[in-house]
Amino acid sequence: MGMTMSEKILAKAARQSEVKAGEIVWVKADIAMMHDLLGPWLIDGGFRRLGGRLFDKEKVVVVSDHCTPPATVQQADILKFTRDWARNQDLPYYYEFEGPCHQVIVEHGHVRPGRLILGTDSHTCMAGGLGAFATGIGSTEMIGVLLTGETWMKVPETIKVVWDGELPHGVYAKDIVLKTIKDIGHAGATYQTLEFSGSAIRGLSMDERLVLSNMAVEAGAKTGLIEPDEKVIKFLRSKGVTDEIDDLFSDKDAVYTRTLHYNASDLEPQVACPHEIDNVHPVNAVEGKTVDQVYLGSCTNGRLSDLRIAADILKGKKIANHIRCLVVPASQHIWMEANKEGILDILTEAGCIVNMPSCGACGGFTSGVIGAGEVVMSSSNRNFRGRMGSPDGEVYLGSPATVAATAIEGKIADPRKYLLQGVR
Amino acid sequence: MGMTMSEKILAKAARQSEVKAGEIVWVKADIAMMHDLLGPWLIDGGFRRLGGRLFDKEKVVVVSDHCTPPATVQQADILKFTRDWARNQDLPYYYEFEGPCHQVIVEHGHVRPGRLILGTDSHTCMAGGLGAFATGIGSTEMIGVLLTGETWMKVPETIKVVWDGELPHGVYAKDIVLKTIKDIGHAGATYQTLEFSGSAIRGLSMDERLVLSNMAVEAGAKTGLIEPDEKVIKFLRSKGVTDEIDDLFSDKDAVYTRTLHYNASDLEPQVACPHEIDNVHPVNAVEGKTVDQVYLGSCTNGRLSDLRIAADILKGKKIANHIRCLVVPASQHIWMEANKEGILDILTEAGCIVNMPSCGACGGFTSGVIGAGEVVMSSSNRNFRGRMGSPDGEVYLGSPATVAATAIEGKIADPRKYLLQGVR
Repeated sequence: MGMTMSEKILAKAARQSEVKAGEIVWVKADIAMMHDLLGPWLIDGGFRRLGGRLFDKEKVVVVSDHCTPPATVQQADILKFTRDWARNQDLPYYYEFEGPCHQVIVEHGHVRPGRLILGTDSHTCMAGGLGAFATGIGSTEMIGVLLTGETWMKVPETIKVVWDGELPHGVYAKDIVLKTIKDIGHAGATYQTLEFSGSAIRGLSMDERLVLSNMAVEAGAKTGLIEPDEKVIKFLRSKGVTDEIDDLFSDKDAVYTRTLHYNASDLEPQVACPHEIDNVHPVNAVEGKTVDQVYLGSCTNGRLSDLRIAADILKGKKIANHIRCLVVPASQHIWMEANKEGILDILTEAGCIVNMPSCGACGGFTSGVIGAGEVVMSSSNRNFRGRMGSPDGEVYLGSPATVAATAIEGKIADPRKYLLQGVR
Repeated sequence: MGMTMSEKILAKAARQSEVKAGEIVWVKADIAMMHDLLGPWLIDGGFRRLGGRLFDKEKVVVVSDHCTPPATVQQADILKFTRDWARNQDLPYYYEFEGPCHQVIVEHGHVRPGRLILGTDSHTCMAGGLGAFATGIGSTEMIGVLLTGETWMKVPETIKVVWDGELPHGVYAKDIVLKTIKDIGHAGATYQTLEFSGSAIRGLSMDERLVLSNMAVEAGAKTGLIEPDEKVIKFLRSKGVTDEIDDLFSDKDAVYTRTLHYNASDLEPQVACPHEIDNVHPVNAVEGKTVDQVYLGSCTNGRLSDLRIAADILKGKKIANHIRCLVVPASQHIWMEANKEGILDILTEAGCIVNMPSCGACGGFTSGVIGAGEVVMSSSNRNFRGRMGSPDGEVYLGSPATVAATAIEGKIADPRKYLLQGVR
């Protein structure tokens, strides 16, 4: 019996020739990732009581991203604790002020096809866009992983999500994933793997693939995988990875619990409406809704191609004067690349504010929190009540193109009228 | 008997032909300025109970700068309240996400020689660099000003601070003001006006003059004045001011309570050490002190010429790897100008993080707060215990050049060795 990519990675991590969905296995992590907010500061007590020795410091990656820049003394203290902990453990891989961890570990080559990546953040699944089984675990569970490198896991079933065809002008990976989550439901893939495939998926850039894997958890999935191809290899080589890269694919006779088929050509821009990620409608159903803030950023959609799309739409235009438009590149690397291309000039000329990379506004804990009664159109990944600040605020989610079009009108807008040419 | 500039402005504001220091006068404000944190949100109740009608909405300027970007729901709510209040009052001059109020009102031409400017922030005195009598008032007092345009004031005595000679290479306005405050003491000019004059002062750029006036309050002064000259007129014209600009100067026989004389040629880079603004020493006395954070920004020293100096020092170099260096231009306008000049590229290549303009890190309430035990070298204006975050942190203040040199070494450093040529 063949295996899915998900099963193959877990079989390898379990040092077994094969595993089957539903089986409980002990797996060895290739990377244990923590960020500041759910990392050393929380786990150090337990970690030290149980010996305080890392299983392999080369495999532990710590990224401070939630408390950068600190908005409170407590955040500053957590950041300092994290930095000092990384130094005391002599960690070779500690990053801070570089941006959200999911993007940073991709940029620094920690994510590879076939790896098992465990991280103390639910969007760890983003690494699946490069063919890693990557998933979020609790901080307490991380203590065991740090000490032994291992944990137990039930091998997930896999849902195959096939998008064939060609995305129309003005429609992007974010629209694909929102439509997929709408159909699966916010808990419809709980403890399952999503495997995205089909010609539309293969046509996506590396940047866009990460949007799909990033949001797999929004349907409850353990991880979201895409078969790594030459784009992934090229990307990794550009990041200085010289090791051999494993071939990874699902066997033809692999067993899926469910398969969804879509034709990308039929897709319109999608918007997730308050207060659920699966409350998704075509943009025209909510067009004209007045917003107070527009947020272009996050590990979901703050990459270079996202900023390019927004700049393409906003060039020579001005954002609506009753709103603010916050642009937060997904990493310091992207900030710098975007600036070299002139994108930040275009965006600021249009009236946008460019902030440093951080998780702040997306998570509602600094750098762009919303107040009661405020409405946001955001390119990020969550819109539950209170996610970006006040529980009496509203968060709509869309693609960077939808976000940019909305910034111009100050109302939720269809991006298709603004794009003179495709930029994929 | 002649009058000082300070007396002349207050005589005009009091509609009297002359006033004398010590006299109590009723004065009419030319500009009433509020920011979000100490503005509408605090005063609206009292303002409405007393009628709720502005004396002249053309003279009321509101700048949201302390809660941008909001780090908490409360800050977001205050920002929204401020924005809505400005809209409901139909204010022609409301600014947000543009940067610290003191810089914003200068850039938008609200500050003119001879004007009386009252603002709900202690550094309102910065406007004195253009020859306005500008001073901070409490929010409760602002209620009366908003309703009547008037308040009472005791005419201050004036301390004359004369800096003749030429500043040496690597020494700046910040060093002048720190040395002055050291000698006067942090309360030595309480309820007095500081008047800066002499050839060294006349030689300063507009950007640098604002450093002196900004910090007048740090010696307790009501305001800090510099005689407006052709540089001020040229600056105002560049900002679109077309009205006639009043001549303003202190009469030759004006009475000063005290005069201090300095020779700028003798000045070395100065550093204000924890935890008092007048605990000032030449940089060599504290050279080598390890820092955790470097902050280049604020309404004191985040202007274009400041960023240029830092870029001149940091070009092609890297900041020390144990620190973070936060760059916060003093306004969105400066952010954009600096980017057009390539300054932000240089600074980010050196490892700095560029954040959006705000009061956050300087005031210790968002976007770069420090934790217990952390040490900062900052270009801002205050270093009392807890100013930038934890009361167990330490804040050192210096010029942008000293800050940039410190960023390279990770230790307080003398900037003179880094500057190949003067950039004034």
